[in-house]
Amino acid sequence: MQRAEVVVVGSGYAGVSAAIELHRHGVDVVVVEASTRIGGRVLTERSPTGHAIDLGGMWLGAGQTEFARWASEAGAVTYPTPATGDAILRDGGRDRRYDPAGSPPLGMIGGALLASSAWRIERLSRLIDLDEPWASPRADRFDAVTVAAWLRNAVPFGRGRQLAEVVLAEVLTADPGSVSMLALLTYLRSAGGLRPALGTENGAQQDLFVDGADRPLRHVAEGLGDRIELSAPVTEIDHGGPEVVVRSDRHDIACERVVVAVPPHLAGRIRYVPGLPADRDAIMQRIPMGRVVKAIAAYDEPFWRRDGLGGEALDLSGPVPATFDISPPGGPGLLCALVGGRRADALGRLEVGERERVVTAQFTSLFGPRARRAVAYRDKVWADDIHARGGYSGYFPPGVLTEVGSALRAPVGRIHWAGTETATEFIGYIEGAIRSGQRAAAEVRARIGAVTGDLAGDGGSNRVG
Amino acid sequence: MQRAEVVVVGSGYAGVSAAIELHRHGVDVVVVEASTRIGGRVLTERSPTGHAIDLGGMWLGAGQTEFARWASEAGAVTYPTPATGDAILRDGGRDRRYDPAGSPPLGMIGGALLASSAWRIERLSRLIDLDEPWASPRADRFDAVTVAAWLRNAVPFGRGRQLAEVVLAEVLTADPGSVSMLALLTYLRSAGGLRPALGTENGAQQDLFVDGADRPLRHVAEGLGDRIELSAPVTEIDHGGPEVVVRSDRHDIACERVVVAVPPHLAGRIRYVPGLPADRDAIMQRIPMGRVVKAIAAYDEPFWRRDGLGGEALDLSGPVPATFDISPPGGPGLLCALVGGRRADALGRLEVGERERVVTAQFTSLFGPRARRAVAYRDKVWADDIHARGGYSGYFPPGVLTEVGSALRAPVGRIHWAGTETATEFIGYIEGAIRSGQRAAAEVRARIGAVTGDLAGDGGSNRVG
Repeated sequence: MQRAEVVVVGSGYAGVSAAIELHRHGVDVVVVEASTRIGGRVLTERSPTGHAIDLGGMWLGAGQTEFARWASEAGAVTYPTPATGDAILRDGGRDRRYDPAGSPPLGMIGGALLASSAWRIERLSRLIDLDEPWASPRADRFDAVTVAAWLRNAVPFGRGRQLAEVVLAEVLTADPGSVSMLALLTYLRSAGGLRPALGTENGAQQDLFVDGADRPLRHVAEGLGDRIELSAPVTEIDHGGPEVVVRSDRHDIACERVVVAVPPHLAGRIRYVPGLPADRDAIMQRIPMGRVVKAIAAYDEPFWRRDGLGGEALDLSGPVPATFDISPPGGPGLLCALVGGRRADALGRLEVGERERVVTAQFTSLFGPRARRAVAYRDKVWADDIHARGGYSGYFPPGVLTEVGSALRAPVGRIHWAGTETATEFIGYIEGAIRSGQRAAAEVRARIGAVTGDLAGDGGSNRVG
Repeated sequence: MQRAEVVVVGSGYAGVSAAIELHRHGVDVVVVEASTRIGGRVLTERSPTGHAIDLGGMWLGAGQTEFARWASEAGAVTYPTPATGDAILRDGGRDRRYDPAGSPPLGMIGGALLASSAWRIERLSRLIDLDEPWASPRADRFDAVTVAAWLRNAVPFGRGRQLAEVVLAEVLTADPGSVSMLALLTYLRSAGGLRPALGTENGAQQDLFVDGADRPLRHVAEGLGDRIELSAPVTEIDHGGPEVVVRSDRHDIACERVVVAVPPHLAGRIRYVPGLPADRDAIMQRIPMGRVVKAIAAYDEPFWRRDGLGGEALDLSGPVPATFDISPPGGPGLLCALVGGRRADALGRLEVGERERVVTAQFTSLFGPRARRAVAYRDKVWADDIHARGGYSGYFPPGVLTEVGSALRAPVGRIHWAGTETATEFIGYIEGAIRSGQRAAAEVRARIGAVTGDLAGDGGSNRVG
């Protein structure tokens, strides 16, 4: 049997972050990854033009200090998300152009109502206790209501509410009718507020990577050398004996502690011997993945700019709700569609050729016939990826945070939990993943080497068999 | 490698129902069960007095024709759930007695408001299309709201709403703040309505088994002889080859078709090779288990009846919301506590001795000091059972039915799905489990033996790898 001090399960940003922290502090660590590649929900491919195409997480946002540090240490070059030209709001058959720095064209009253509910959301999110969202004021009440039901009361006119629902479905990659209002407020608070969460400049969508968002990860992973083992899906974690044994298709590894750095529902598909306490098990039952389809079409140039368009569009009722320009400076024109929630389900059920037709038709109807002639088209249905089963991240249906939220990060004996879902800052972002890995590594380091006292101290939480 | 025509995963009422249907039609079937016993969420133990104690599902309800047939064929003796004497409504420190055949004592206005919202729920549930709840009128709207949020609007006074929430938490074993209103309406419709779902005589709690609710199951299982294999947790279903291979800890079995007859979240903990389509995977991500603690205290006699009490009690705010009398005629006195949702989480976190103290204290404060001297106490925290991970059944958070409900019963290639969560009648009941097994067996029989045409027909739905 192979041996290591610590095994990290998963090689996304969270797992690699935990592993490098441990490695740099002299801990003997092994990362086991189910897939044939590292990266998890970050996936960079190269287009025929040689440019990076990010089919997963891609943005470096404002205030994302750890991700920025990783990027800088990797020498990764970024560029600001293009933000010049008019945006388009499509409402049924009608397109309206507007300045994306301002508000969408909903008329005076509509705009005022939407602004007032945005203000209410912003204000409510400031009440959230990020370490313990379930202990925030009125947490029980906000956790018993869906975002959709809250909006139905707060935005008393159809088009504004539709706009809010479309925007929030993009943020959450789940329908507002499926997500807890408390979870939305927590998410927004962790991203610095509603405006930063939605924004480009000074927001979460501020910068893009010339070489793709996996560059910082690959750089750090190089520091782990051959300690990352691919194609090794973990099937069982036996933590009943003197050593913890992590079993994968490839081998068994004995270790002192494990960091599970995959989304909660995937963590739930590992068998734990003995079984985990009920609250922790509930975390793995009750936090499903969002669903997102990301599609990117490459053109010789960002031709839409000639018409004064910025490439950004919101469609309140079509199959492709959000479109934007991610073209690198001086490079090809890249249009990106992000489809979340039930529209992602619908698009994902189509074969790839059909998906391309739907997305290209949308781009063409928005930006004219040149959009029909893409140099390349790539997309990714994240729910079909058996090593992710959705994206961007796990979301919290009503009741989960207040009922079992306290089990989200709590170690179970010698098992620790990382992943962007467990973050307290930038939940759902790459930044959250990195920070969650650092937090899990700190937990492990505080306990490793003090095994005797440790076992005595942790035994009680581990009583379910 | 062992061989069978069909493998059934799980030996609860659903699995045994599917297996016996196939067996009686000459199909060579094997049932594989993870646990050391059959029964799933039905679990009968014997008390020191020799009487059956049902720690899981126990009632035979009105209209449950298949379960009644099984019971009759097994020669199982039933008795009506005791329903004489006053019930108690405890509201904070105050106890009020009332006739359980009537309405709880909420005053004129409170009673009228509660009755009117009950009437609304009843009327709304009649609109549900049981085969396709997601296609019912206003399904999207009701699926985007929690039961708690709906009640907040519908029952505009505190105590009545609290009562409704407590009663519904018992029915759903999940907090009203976690469950979709569409799911509640579907559940109630499948049980024949609100009154039958809550009722004893002519309702879902009509009869109890003298010898325990596992008697009919054991009788039918005898007909399967040695075709049930215990202690064989299924880890993988490989359905990519010419045969389907079901792998368990004990062995591999090659077969033509599989019926997975375990709750959705447990089905999701099996590895499928190739991976399942996204919608089916979402079913397994998004339907967590309810949580229930069931506690039974046995006494020499049902002493509470001497005080004119029926043993039934509802407590709006304490740790034990519902208590009732399940004493067999002429036998010992049996008080039963059912605790669902977040109160079950709280009670389940205690050690068994603590739980006994909490439950006995509740019985004592309701029925006097004799309740302190139980002959026997038994309880079961279903979320701690690693082969169930909750109970009574999986529940539907907002958004699930309308977004992926159509994948709940749909076979994936040669894999079929049973379990009470997949029922269209008596969802969540033993009756639903039996009927779901019959439905799955009928699907299998319609396809088995016509393997060539079958594979061609099913291949398309199986495209995710």
